[in-house]
Amino acid sequence: MQTVMVNASSAYPVHIGGGLLERAGELVAGATKSRTCAVITDTTVEKLYAARVCRSLQDAGVTVRLHAFPAGEQSKNIAVYGGMLEFLAESGLTRSDFAVALGGGVAGDMAGFAAATYQRGIDYIQMPTTLLAASDSSVGGKTAIDLAAGKNLAGAFHQPKMVICDTDAFQTLPEEDFAGGMAETVKHALIADAGFYRFLMEEPVRERIGDVVRRNVEIKASVVGEDEFERGRRKILNFGHTLGHAIEKNSGFTVPHGHAVAMGMVLAARAAERMAYSPAGTLDAVLAACRRFRLPTQCPYTAPQLYAAAISDKKRDGGSIDVVVLEELGRARTVRLDLEGLRRFTEAAL
Amino acid sequence: MQTVMVNASSAYPVHIGGGLLERAGELVAGATKSRTCAVITDTTVEKLYAARVCRSLQDAGVTVRLHAFPAGEQSKNIAVYGGMLEFLAESGLTRSDFAVALGGGVAGDMAGFAAATYQRGIDYIQMPTTLLAASDSSVGGKTAIDLAAGKNLAGAFHQPKMVICDTDAFQTLPEEDFAGGMAETVKHALIADAGFYRFLMEEPVRERIGDVVRRNVEIKASVVGEDEFERGRRKILNFGHTLGHAIEKNSGFTVPHGHAVAMGMVLAARAAERMAYSPAGTLDAVLAACRRFRLPTQCPYTAPQLYAAAISDKKRDGGSIDVVVLEELGRARTVRLDLEGLRRFTEAAL
Repeated sequence: MQTVMVNASSAYPVHIGGGLLERAGELVAGATKSRTCAVITDTTVEKLYAARVCRSLQDAGVTVRLHAFPAGEQSKNIAVYGGMLEFLAESGLTRSDFAVALGGGVAGDMAGFAAATYQRGIDYIQMPTTLLAASDSSVGGKTAIDLAAGKNLAGAFHQPKMVICDTDAFQTLPEEDFAGGMAETVKHALIADAGFYRFLMEEPVRERIGDVVRRNVEIKASVVGEDEFERGRRKILNFGHTLGHAIEKNSGFTVPHGHAVAMGMVLAARAAERMAYSPAGTLDAVLAACRRFRLPTQCPYTAPQLYAAAISDKKRDGGSIDVVVLEELGRARTVRLDLEGLRRFTEAAL
Repeated sequence: MQTVMVNASSAYPVHIGGGLLERAGELVAGATKSRTCAVITDTTVEKLYAARVCRSLQDAGVTVRLHAFPAGEQSKNIAVYGGMLEFLAESGLTRSDFAVALGGGVAGDMAGFAAATYQRGIDYIQMPTTLLAASDSSVGGKTAIDLAAGKNLAGAFHQPKMVICDTDAFQTLPEEDFAGGMAETVKHALIADAGFYRFLMEEPVRERIGDVVRRNVEIKASVVGEDEFERGRRKILNFGHTLGHAIEKNSGFTVPHGHAVAMGMVLAARAAERMAYSPAGTLDAVLAACRRFRLPTQCPYTAPQLYAAAISDKKRDGGSIDVVVLEELGRARTVRLDLEGLRRFTEAAL
């Protein structure tokens, strides 16, 4: 087991290793005095992992209530969130008890938001079971649900008390999901660590998954520690996301997030290189990483389609929007564009 | 106009005076750079005050979108909250825009929660139009909605950017609502300021409403400034609330909050005096204040009825609950009771 500390407004450990779901109770028992918790998961993950997690918690003396919501992105809505809140209340959870978010990004974002708002905030623990959730959404305290008007439009900043990444769970993922999970890891390397980029390009990542997740989490933790509430530096984590979100939107959210981010990084790198924000060779480095992890590099949408979707992004601040560009491999910054600037950036991306 | 500063994690002014709703635009313009806002109110307050507030904001150069939800406590649910979030999104509000909560406690709590969670938190301004909301819920950053399982069970801590209390609005309240509004003010005097208690007992409060609200807000601000997230001292603001909530619950929420708090303060004072937490004469002081403001002092429920409702209170922390007692007039502390202790406290209250 490897452990990375996240130093946000509250400090918490991210534990990474094989077989950790079976050890959940022992890990959790050291972090909280409460002996009552609610495990929130989806119906798919419930079948795979709920029994072993609940048993481990019970063996550690924790009383467990289990709630499973229908698996899938379409569950990420206010009605399912309301169901979680009612479940927490019916279970008699008090302010000193805790929740467990077990599953992928949807379970983590939603159970995190329920924990952030139940009785104005209770503790929760993230147990990501996908590489994508472990690499990105389980760390950093962003929680959310979708609205009819757009994805992740409601939510809260609420840091978990602990993150438990069982790398065995990621090994069983289908190839496409594993690839999607690597997209955020590639992003972290591109924006913050050229050495890690080379590691990813040279080492067998499946065999070294523990080291991959550890370094990935270290980078994310460092950025979050500097700017928990995304007022400045944390925005670099959105590299590839402005146009990536636009791709997801145009696809009616049939393109998985990781794949959309990969395409978004390629687009952003191309635009930034053409507009001289990035040095020559940046786009090639992004393309090489996407190809190595079998991530898509070709965007099926036109610039006007992407622009139209991008201007409704929630990260828009009045009449301007921040896009992230690579100053070199391993170093990123934001560029504030007005709407005409965004239009030109999008044109240059294709 | 009088102004009290609240020094919580963010500092903000509470403006108190006659005719302030007409000056809303001018006051707000000095506090934010954004020139776009959403005014959230209920259908009753909309008819009374929305036009003048919107006009004032527009005169100050602010683009205003208006949303009115059905007036009444039964609106304080997740569906109406979801409607507010969708409205904010459809209005195109960005992270740098702001919301206005115009109305009583329901509007303030709900619009505050929507602002706390829309895009993970945008600014908002409280404009309480009832004495109860001005005296209590509009200051301190507690936002909430009800769940099927209980009142205020979901919410967030989110401090407003400004509070605007137009005392003219309170003068038009029916006598019963004015009385209910005085309950929290009496509470603040009892727990924190014996001099203010004497002021309330001697002065004509309707004529001196500005001074009453100012001193009331000063007390609340001082407590909130010391303990924003209710880990310790802020709990003294719950004086009269443990059994007050139990009365509201037993009545199916037909007893107004202020009236229930008045009865709850009488009950808590009686129990505390009998159990020697409070000196002789404390109960009489509470009774005298309630009678002066035509607040009820007789509880229509039995001790077992109150106990059953109280143990499901969200402030319960595992197997114990904090009740607030007066050490003397103007000084309060919490006493941690286990469930048997709470049962005896409730018995002694009647």
